[in-house]
Amino acid sequence: MNETATPTASEPRPPSHARIRARKRAVSESAEAWAVLDRAALSHVGFIDAGRPMVIPMIHARIGETIYLHGARATRIVKQLGGGVPVCLTATLLDGLVLARSAFHHSMNYRCVMAHGAARQVADPAEKHQALVALTDHLLPGRWDEVRPMSAKEERATGVIALDVDHITMKRRDGPPVDDAEDYALPIWAGVIDVARRAMAVHPDPALATSVPRPASLDAFINARNAPTRPDGEND
Amino acid sequence: MNETATPTASEPRPPSHARIRARKRAVSESAEAWAVLDRAALSHVGFIDAGRPMVIPMIHARIGETIYLHGARATRIVKQLGGGVPVCLTATLLDGLVLARSAFHHSMNYRCVMAHGAARQVADPAEKHQALVALTDHLLPGRWDEVRPMSAKEERATGVIALDVDHITMKRRDGPPVDDAEDYALPIWAGVIDVARRAMAVHPDPALATSVPRPASLDAFINARNAPTRPDGEND
Repeated sequence: MNETATPTASEPRPPSHARIRARKRAVSESAEAWAVLDRAALSHVGFIDAGRPMVIPMIHARIGETIYLHGARATRIVKQLGGGVPVCLTATLLDGLVLARSAFHHSMNYRCVMAHGAARQVADPAEKHQALVALTDHLLPGRWDEVRPMSAKEERATGVIALDVDHITMKRRDGPPVDDAEDYALPIWAGVIDVARRAMAVHPDPALATSVPRPASLDAFINARNAPTRPDGEND
Repeated sequence: MNETATPTASEPRPPSHARIRARKRAVSESAEAWAVLDRAALSHVGFIDAGRPMVIPMIHARIGETIYLHGARATRIVKQLGGGVPVCLTATLLDGLVLARSAFHHSMNYRCVMAHGAARQVADPAEKHQALVALTDHLLPGRWDEVRPMSAKEERATGVIALDVDHITMKRRDGPPVDDAEDYALPIWAGVIDVARRAMAVHPDPALATSVPRPASLDAFINARNAPTRPDGEND
């Protein structure tokens, strides 16, 4: 992750070495970008607060090309984001550590999605409800149908922010390290360590009655996360 | 991760339920915040670009209370951050999914550090060199001493940004879900799924001579990441 700018067609042409990197890493298919966003457990949400940048981790979910966020209505961030401010929402899946022969060429394999748009407070109760279902199911697919749904009072107490995305980009790096030609002869180990987020342990609530069975959503999540192989590269 | 604002002493008092959450989650010890930053593989770096927020994932490292970032000198972000702009750097360790009996009380266990400060381009060659050592060793502890060090030309081609931190805060959530009193009797499973980032596989560079041994840094990383138990809670 040595270079991080995202050139667009309207910008002046970057120097040739940056162009090569941009071609490799700027993926135009937005379908893949949306899939990465769906896969990421959380996003980092950036906005401007009194002239200063703020970056806050939030759970997201998306329906079509709208991304939803939520928080208690009383909190500052929900009030701020509800005011139609510009937002940059970034979600990153870290896939591996890239160990080169030279310090200079060390990097990370990753997939990163950046969505720009204007935030708005969701006022329509039907849209708000759908967003809350999507947010719960983003945390754990299928969970909404297993739990006590939100009461009208709880839905009123929750602020839902919609980000109507007008620009989404994806960058990625994958594959082995790329060293300078003369360094390949050095007796220095080079390669990639794949990393992935895994489910490690399940802790039933100490207050849970032992008669309550484990839900299907939980085992599905663990099976999907902890598959022994990852033929499709679907890790994060 | 239902509420995300970080009240400070200088702000108006938030409503009482927000105060309770703030007491629980705003950890004042900056030592713990720095330790979380050291543990996080990457940060999300926020700044203002032509009046719009930008959030970009970057590798970070810190020396004392200065955080370093780097990128090719020619890239837009390095030029922008080098201009003394305000930065919000946020690093989040996701520790678990919090499954409550009600949709409303679902959450995540996490530790999140947010550092605010002004970015500056590092001009001093000695400071720059130390930062590049720290960045390489942040990716994989001990790696700098195993590899071909940066040439003077490579160091010149790399832009190093320092963030002199004037404000660092940490928030966390841990422990079981907290449901409404009347929901504990519901026959709905509740608990926490711990998640953690693990080393999954090692791929030697296809161009690597088989006579080159695996470095100590690699096995130390895997042993530290993949310890079967995590008595100290040190996962991410």
